[in-house]
Amino acid sequence: MELTQASNEQLREWETALAEEYQQYQASGLNLDLTRGKPSAQQLSLSDEISDILGGDLSNEANTDLRNYGGLDGILECKELFAPVLDVNIDEILIGGNSSLTLMYFAVMFAQQQGFGELGQSWASENTSTKFLCPVPGYDRHFSVCEHLGIEMIPVTLNDDGPDMDEVEALLKQDSSIKGIWCVPRFSNPTGTVYSNAVVERIAQLGKIAGDNFRVFWDNAYAVHSLSDDAPEVASLMACCRTHGTEDSVYLFGSTSKITYAGAGVAFMGMSKANLKAFTKHLGMTQIGPDKINQLRHVKLLKDAAGIKNHMRKHADVLKPRFDIVLKHLREGLGGTDMAEWTEPEGGYFISLNTLPGLAQEVVKLAAEAGVKLTPAGATFPYGNDPENRNIRIAPSVPTEEEIERAMQVFVNCVKLASVRQRLA
Amino acid sequence: MELTQASNEQLREWETALAEEYQQYQASGLNLDLTRGKPSAQQLSLSDEISDILGGDLSNEANTDLRNYGGLDGILECKELFAPVLDVNIDEILIGGNSSLTLMYFAVMFAQQQGFGELGQSWASENTSTKFLCPVPGYDRHFSVCEHLGIEMIPVTLNDDGPDMDEVEALLKQDSSIKGIWCVPRFSNPTGTVYSNAVVERIAQLGKIAGDNFRVFWDNAYAVHSLSDDAPEVASLMACCRTHGTEDSVYLFGSTSKITYAGAGVAFMGMSKANLKAFTKHLGMTQIGPDKINQLRHVKLLKDAAGIKNHMRKHADVLKPRFDIVLKHLREGLGGTDMAEWTEPEGGYFISLNTLPGLAQEVVKLAAEAGVKLTPAGATFPYGNDPENRNIRIAPSVPTEEEIERAMQVFVNCVKLASVRQRLA
Repeated sequence: MELTQASNEQLREWETALAEEYQQYQASGLNLDLTRGKPSAQQLSLSDEISDILGGDLSNEANTDLRNYGGLDGILECKELFAPVLDVNIDEILIGGNSSLTLMYFAVMFAQQQGFGELGQSWASENTSTKFLCPVPGYDRHFSVCEHLGIEMIPVTLNDDGPDMDEVEALLKQDSSIKGIWCVPRFSNPTGTVYSNAVVERIAQLGKIAGDNFRVFWDNAYAVHSLSDDAPEVASLMACCRTHGTEDSVYLFGSTSKITYAGAGVAFMGMSKANLKAFTKHLGMTQIGPDKINQLRHVKLLKDAAGIKNHMRKHADVLKPRFDIVLKHLREGLGGTDMAEWTEPEGGYFISLNTLPGLAQEVVKLAAEAGVKLTPAGATFPYGNDPENRNIRIAPSVPTEEEIERAMQVFVNCVKLASVRQRLA
Repeated sequence: MELTQASNEQLREWETALAEEYQQYQASGLNLDLTRGKPSAQQLSLSDEISDILGGDLSNEANTDLRNYGGLDGILECKELFAPVLDVNIDEILIGGNSSLTLMYFAVMFAQQQGFGELGQSWASENTSTKFLCPVPGYDRHFSVCEHLGIEMIPVTLNDDGPDMDEVEALLKQDSSIKGIWCVPRFSNPTGTVYSNAVVERIAQLGKIAGDNFRVFWDNAYAVHSLSDDAPEVASLMACCRTHGTEDSVYLFGSTSKITYAGAGVAFMGMSKANLKAFTKHLGMTQIGPDKINQLRHVKLLKDAAGIKNHMRKHADVLKPRFDIVLKHLREGLGGTDMAEWTEPEGGYFISLNTLPGLAQEVVKLAAEAGVKLTPAGATFPYGNDPENRNIRIAPSVPTEEEIERAMQVFVNCVKLASVRQRLA
């Protein structure tokens, strides 16, 4: 099915057949959901040992009382466990509560309003408006943090090897009110992009262009979340920064939300010692300390880097068949047509598909009306505005394999139907 | 020892004897700490059942997966457990993470910067400067939230029955940029004051004077933390508000930090449905949801209101002897003199003592040099500024009874010594 090669008659025949198939799906009363990038119950159960793992043993190396207040930057054992995930030193990491989003929110907010202590003044005091670069498509919750804090977002192109660095550097040279960039360096949400070493090298040097108060927000949400052992790694941003003396220009984030329990995990943040000092001073105004007991649970469950790797293989065992089903349907249904292009990620939680320009909302609507929920079109762009109206995020982790089979049949049908109708119109 | 009755010769004799006693304390190498309002290990152990209480059972009434993301306002069972503590309805409470301070921080911040949704615009958009009323002495972490968010603080007198309401009302009538008041209505930090019914009635009507965007920040941190069963209760603020139609003018806070584990408890916030709707919308920009597993642990441990009451009696058994020792030393050492006045709280975590004007810093310094750490003088006032330099907060929960005995001997000696020397100077 190549639309550009088809006669009007051919298109009308396709439309009739596709519409008939669509009506059958509609009549079958489906209720399927491909919207949410969250672990399935099967994945959560991989960590079920954690909820009662302490066995009354609350002892820790520092011999402090983990039950009490304090310890704003987290417990040492957890720092030792997660510092390698971000490739930072033990004195360059903070272990928080259950949400890396909260750490990101505070990091943007403190930078905007309160500044960086000895490192520099607030963005608000430098410029009347602060701007962020947002590689697109990207993660909607990054964008909503900016929007909530009144920070203007500038979309930049996300290539197959990461953000378009020529574009990024040119923008930074033009506009000194650009103070941050959102990055999901490995298995980017939603494309699954892994940043190349060359891109990471250039990101490590952005602080030299953009000035002292610029920060890279490096959300390494899928740092250890590959679908196989030979998936591409991402270069260490902090290591690159050390060679360029730009350690203060980056904030690194991670969490166990997709390692242990999505709602009861542990978030962490890597940064230079100078950044850590300034950040914890501000953070201490908002809380006395994180839940250290839950941090200890994580240490007992995951133990060390090998423990994390082993645990993540079990997640891959659950996730990979789901990704394979999505890709099988896309290849079989849309491969060799001119109706869609998509990514084939080796990790993370999403597959990103581009329809023909102008069709994303229509496809999402058609699918919904046939009982298949998809993330709202536009959600992967700042302000919910996909200028070409073509990007759709597919999240296959929650449904069962059988459900994904059925949902993808519907989805492929909807893409074809919308495409043919557009061509006919 | 009545300083105002004593001759200079008498004063010099006292000074000599007190200084000699002080030197003995100094020589004895004490290392005692009366600074921190946190539970002792003995108290924390009262809840040790909680860390492994689930026994693999993660089921809940709503039959949702508590391990996963979501549930921004907390689990129903926890709402049922804690709504009575704040005397609000089930649909008027949000159950959060481990820190009520974080909820307070966000509540002030959202009000200042983002506003109240349909209820009203942000304080920042109304006035170039926002002001809060702070009954003094009060809780330093309330004051640091204001300071961090650029909110100006106006101290108001805290009487034996609560804030001086004539003063509060007069200030609100004068200045429409006053948008909030901090209140710790039961066993106020540090005085132990319990607000009278008449004061609560007037607080419930402040919104009528101060306008729609005014909020009472009602930090009921010690709602169930009495030292005996017959300690005074505080009237229900929300009930009073209902009679006056001012439900939207109050935010109520509480937590289990001093019920279960100080660092791994559950915080909650009571408010009108309209406030809850606006607040959760903003909160959802900062996080996906709280740790619901830990919320379930609390339900299993505490069960219901009777369970909380029973549990708090065990805390009182640990705390009351400590308070009694402090009060015994104050009465025996300083009773009938003109050198100090203090509160005798029936709950909470603190005893508040006023020295003669100008001596708080000196007493804290003398005590520190004899090995007894006290909360820095001034900490109980906005900007750390006690204008009369006389308030000292005594926190007896952490040290053992024996340690408190020794610490209080030193403390009483320091108060006397500083007082006599001031009179002589």
